[in-house]
Amino acid sequence: MTGAEVGKRYVALIKENKHEECLAELFSQDAVSVEALAPPGGDRTAKGIEAIRGKGKWWMENHTVHKAEVSGPYPHDDRFAVRFVYDITQKPTGKRLTMDEVGLFTIADGKIVREEFFYTGS
Amino acid sequence: MTGAEVGKRYVALIKENKHEECLAELFSQDAVSVEALAPPGGDRTAKGIEAIRGKGKWWMENHTVHKAEVSGPYPHDDRFAVRFVYDITQKPTGKRLTMDEVGLFTIADGKIVREEFFYTGS
Repeated sequence: MTGAEVGKRYVALIKENKHEECLAELFSQDAVSVEALAPPGGDRTAKGIEAIRGKGKWWMENHTVHKAEVSGPYPHDDRFAVRFVYDITQKPTGKRLTMDEVGLFTIADGKIVREEFFYTGS
Repeated sequence: MTGAEVGKRYVALIKENKHEECLAELFSQDAVSVEALAPPGGDRTAKGIEAIRGKGKWWMENHTVHKAEVSGPYPHDDRFAVRFVYDITQKPTGKRLTMDEVGLFTIADGKIVREEFFYTGS
């Protein structure tokens, strides 16, 4: 698949809340995920699909999603961008906030090998 | 300026429609601008600030902007992303459309050295 095709499939799966299928189908085993900022007590970078799966699981367990708006994909050669606007509550603190960020995905051999998230600290 | 600071200034100037000031203040002389797709009869890549200035001038002369929505910046280290949603009419064709894209900007030595635009063809 091209970057644009992977992007379309990525957005379709995320909109259907199929995070596990998205990882299994579209991500390389060696994919790397990089946050703009380190989460409290965590690393900015997750290396390998198992680390990314763990990060996603942690996120889902620690947030309630009230509304999710996913825009894109926006392709450019072997990369695509996606914009995420999530209305969420952080379960540990009870704090409700809007998460507004851009993801940048890099494709090689038809798989996502790198995802990078762009945002400002709240 | 850091990537986040350049991004804030970029978005502020663009929102005020100060394109020339934005180029002069924030872009490196050797900056490169890359479109996702080649415009009709044109190149995807503009090299150097004069080429970028010319591209911007051509764009402004050939489009009427009815409404512009600029979101961001979304920083990540020495890069930042911006989302643009423009309601425009193409002057030569009279066609009105929504331009929805993501710009990715790379900073070196406090200046924008690369801008890349991500979008799908209409």
